[in-house]
Amino acid sequence: MTKQKGGALMSTFRFAESSGMPIYRQLENGIRKMILDGNLSAGDRLPSSRQLATDLGISRQTVKNVFEQLTIEGFLNSRRGSGTFVGDVAVMKLPPEMPRDRRRLNGYRVQPSKHARAIAATKATTRLGSVAAFRPGVPALDMFPRKAWSAAHSRVMRSGNDILFSYGPPGGLPELKRAIRLHVRDHRGIRCDEDQIVVTAGAQQAFVLIALTLIKSGSVVWCEDPGHIAVRDAMRLLCADVKHVPVDRHGFDLEYARQRHPRARLIFVTPSHQHPLGITMSLNRRLELLDSAQQHGCWIVEDDYDSEFRYAERALPAMQALDGSGHVLYVGSFSKSLFPALRIGYLISPPGLVDAFAAAQTLLSQNVSPLQQQVLASFMLDGSFNAHIRNMCTLYQSRRDLLVQGLRQHAGSFLDIEPCLAGMHLIGWLRDGTANELVAAEAIRSAGIDCLPLSIYCVEQVLRPGILFGFACVPDSEINAATRVVGAAMADALHGGRHNVPPRQH
Amino acid sequence: MTKQKGGALMSTFRFAESSGMPIYRQLENGIRKMILDGNLSAGDRLPSSRQLATDLGISRQTVKNVFEQLTIEGFLNSRRGSGTFVGDVAVMKLPPEMPRDRRRLNGYRVQPSKHARAIAATKATTRLGSVAAFRPGVPALDMFPRKAWSAAHSRVMRSGNDILFSYGPPGGLPELKRAIRLHVRDHRGIRCDEDQIVVTAGAQQAFVLIALTLIKSGSVVWCEDPGHIAVRDAMRLLCADVKHVPVDRHGFDLEYARQRHPRARLIFVTPSHQHPLGITMSLNRRLELLDSAQQHGCWIVEDDYDSEFRYAERALPAMQALDGSGHVLYVGSFSKSLFPALRIGYLISPPGLVDAFAAAQTLLSQNVSPLQQQVLASFMLDGSFNAHIRNMCTLYQSRRDLLVQGLRQHAGSFLDIEPCLAGMHLIGWLRDGTANELVAAEAIRSAGIDCLPLSIYCVEQVLRPGILFGFACVPDSEINAATRVVGAAMADALHGGRHNVPPRQH
Repeated sequence: MTKQKGGALMSTFRFAESSGMPIYRQLENGIRKMILDGNLSAGDRLPSSRQLATDLGISRQTVKNVFEQLTIEGFLNSRRGSGTFVGDVAVMKLPPEMPRDRRRLNGYRVQPSKHARAIAATKATTRLGSVAAFRPGVPALDMFPRKAWSAAHSRVMRSGNDILFSYGPPGGLPELKRAIRLHVRDHRGIRCDEDQIVVTAGAQQAFVLIALTLIKSGSVVWCEDPGHIAVRDAMRLLCADVKHVPVDRHGFDLEYARQRHPRARLIFVTPSHQHPLGITMSLNRRLELLDSAQQHGCWIVEDDYDSEFRYAERALPAMQALDGSGHVLYVGSFSKSLFPALRIGYLISPPGLVDAFAAAQTLLSQNVSPLQQQVLASFMLDGSFNAHIRNMCTLYQSRRDLLVQGLRQHAGSFLDIEPCLAGMHLIGWLRDGTANELVAAEAIRSAGIDCLPLSIYCVEQVLRPGILFGFACVPDSEINAATRVVGAAMADALHGGRHNVPPRQH
Repeated sequence: MTKQKGGALMSTFRFAESSGMPIYRQLENGIRKMILDGNLSAGDRLPSSRQLATDLGISRQTVKNVFEQLTIEGFLNSRRGSGTFVGDVAVMKLPPEMPRDRRRLNGYRVQPSKHARAIAATKATTRLGSVAAFRPGVPALDMFPRKAWSAAHSRVMRSGNDILFSYGPPGGLPELKRAIRLHVRDHRGIRCDEDQIVVTAGAQQAFVLIALTLIKSGSVVWCEDPGHIAVRDAMRLLCADVKHVPVDRHGFDLEYARQRHPRARLIFVTPSHQHPLGITMSLNRRLELLDSAQQHGCWIVEDDYDSEFRYAERALPAMQALDGSGHVLYVGSFSKSLFPALRIGYLISPPGLVDAFAAAQTLLSQNVSPLQQQVLASFMLDGSFNAHIRNMCTLYQSRRDLLVQGLRQHAGSFLDIEPCLAGMHLIGWLRDGTANELVAAEAIRSAGIDCLPLSIYCVEQVLRPGILFGFACVPDSEINAATRVVGAAMADALHGGRHNVPPRQH
């Protein structure tokens, strides 16, 4: 038994005063590290607590507490009368502690697998969280009624039942489901029972619940092309066989899909307002799709993400309202009609599937916060939600007009601009059909203006080059100045001899 | 062209005044339904708007608006000077509208698949959301500092940046990641960079992200048995090959797993406080597990769900702190230390994998609400979180003592009760090892007291019968009375000749 080793080593111990870590914790970690690194071995004797306290200039009680803790952990043994020894920990050579500095990870750098790299490559995270002009898909956060929302939240915090602070009932809070039923009845022509509704963590979670419940690895899923990036990448993440279907002026090209692709188990469509092209699916196309779903026993996922905002005619009723045989899964969201950070959406399903969806949700992430559900329910049931939608509809129409005017004024020589009839973005089509939209979009982005190239939404389709400009989130007073930046950046990129610069990956 | 049919039919139309649906919407739906049901055919002429308005006793403008909308939708055609006709919609026999009443669904009742039924059968949803005495796993919601939390929320609502209302940055808000880094450093001995942290929608989402990123269909996953129900069922949902590993007095039985099961890609453990048995994994067992993971290139998921609450010694540092080679994925949660409805947890990962985890999260449900993240960060950084944990530790210890005292007093002839040294529940072991714990637990539940039988956590293991009693969520003043109910219910169930009643499924 080496009696000196422990003592000698211990006296080399130094505290890092600036580390912010308490003394006792530093001493504990130091001793553990010496043992794990093999510098102290089983049976080595440590200096007495009195000696060590003197050597290190700390209180004896601190040393005794550390010894006691390490004894409980098995690192040390105390034998009454004969001192403190290194315990009989597993004799194995541990690798050195993983360095905090990533550059020094060397051999221990964890290499992500091919699968992990493919997940990380999704374009769905491209500048996610940006609220800059002209970010598509973000509502007018500057005009959100924070005060009213905050008051509703405070009321729930003050007088809400304890149950709202726990996990909540699977599938959602009854009061919110009632509010959603009334909303979709009045705005989307949907008649459903409350127990057909599952409250989800945004629309995206609804898509994932549907896939986890209704398809298996290798199932064929038809997605629109161009289409919703996060939907198709989520389906890939879940190992579906995603087939891409173009969009014609009536919407989803069913005939193309029938001729070119194996039969689908799941069909994702955006009938009210095709994402991102903005086409409304015609009645005939809807009926054909429904007929096809019934005939072949497949499911239609109706993603109705921003149907609240229309500037010309009223919206067509939801496809779900035409569905006589229970093949439509309707997905709605509050991310556009209220704010994305609320993270609440809903799935309206044929009755037989609701239990499975609710259980799958529990397994994915437990339920949606019942506290937030209650705040939302009261905001909806007291009429604030409807008033907000009306206000935003008026606001977005005027922001759209300002954007159209600004882009025509400052970028009219590069872009064809038509006002959209619905939604929160418009597409500026490049006049020069051979121009590189990635170069143009990257130039605009470098000038500090967010926007997304149309091709980011495409997989197989090659469309006329275009750029998406979201107008909802930009304060009126900033729109014109921002379009001027767009015009200047495009002039530089498209007339400045930079055509040949390879675009940065988005 | 039948000129009369439309007119005659239309005059049979009746408004349902009590439906709460606006007149124009009822008329629209009525006409659509007549067309879709085949009662009105392409080319049928409708009465003039003037005539219909008179017949129905409504304003002519309302009728004109309805005709206009239905014309846009393709249901009607208006020919100037000659009237309004049913449009040329797809000629196909639609099934009758799906009845709202579930009992009348008949042929259209959607039958869930075997897969969907298996998902719905998870026991993870058993009375989920209950906060009644003695629900395991629910913190003291009655003592949660609602006022302080509400104030923090109001501050963020008042002065927070618009960016907090949008989707937020993938992986989490930097400020919250900083607060988490400090917390795990001080409480769990973990040293990590902030960019190794992914903020998740509770611990459950972290488990799912890990599986989606690191395993594929059919991969072997080792889970503790008894163990976390939602973890093993989530792994099954994702088509992993789950193998069940018993627990001995040192924790996860690695030797058993090695001898009986194929090598795992992922190992789920609860080293600080085995769920639900409460065992602390020994240092030797931890080192063996780490060694095994490094040798075979598998991943250890360290679920550290309630390590904050210990009533005897301090906690061992996290396994992650012993991990020299980057094979531990550490998962923490605020569901126990604050409240479940917050729905925030975190994953601490080796650096190379973080991008994939963050991207997978975006595809599952977008990010965690940045608004809630900001509220939590400020609650942590101003010291309120630490103070709350200290208060709860004292409170839970006294609630535990009251529970032990009450159960010994009222149910001591049925249950062996020992105070637990950590966590939020204890296990009452049935004195009669042949008694049916399901019968006992169901009797207690029928008497209005929540509790869970130990066997609900077991898959292959058959343990001495026991019942979990959570004490954290029960106000001090109610504990004794509730234990009296437990005692009476058990007396009735175990001595009342009901041994042979088959237990209800949980």
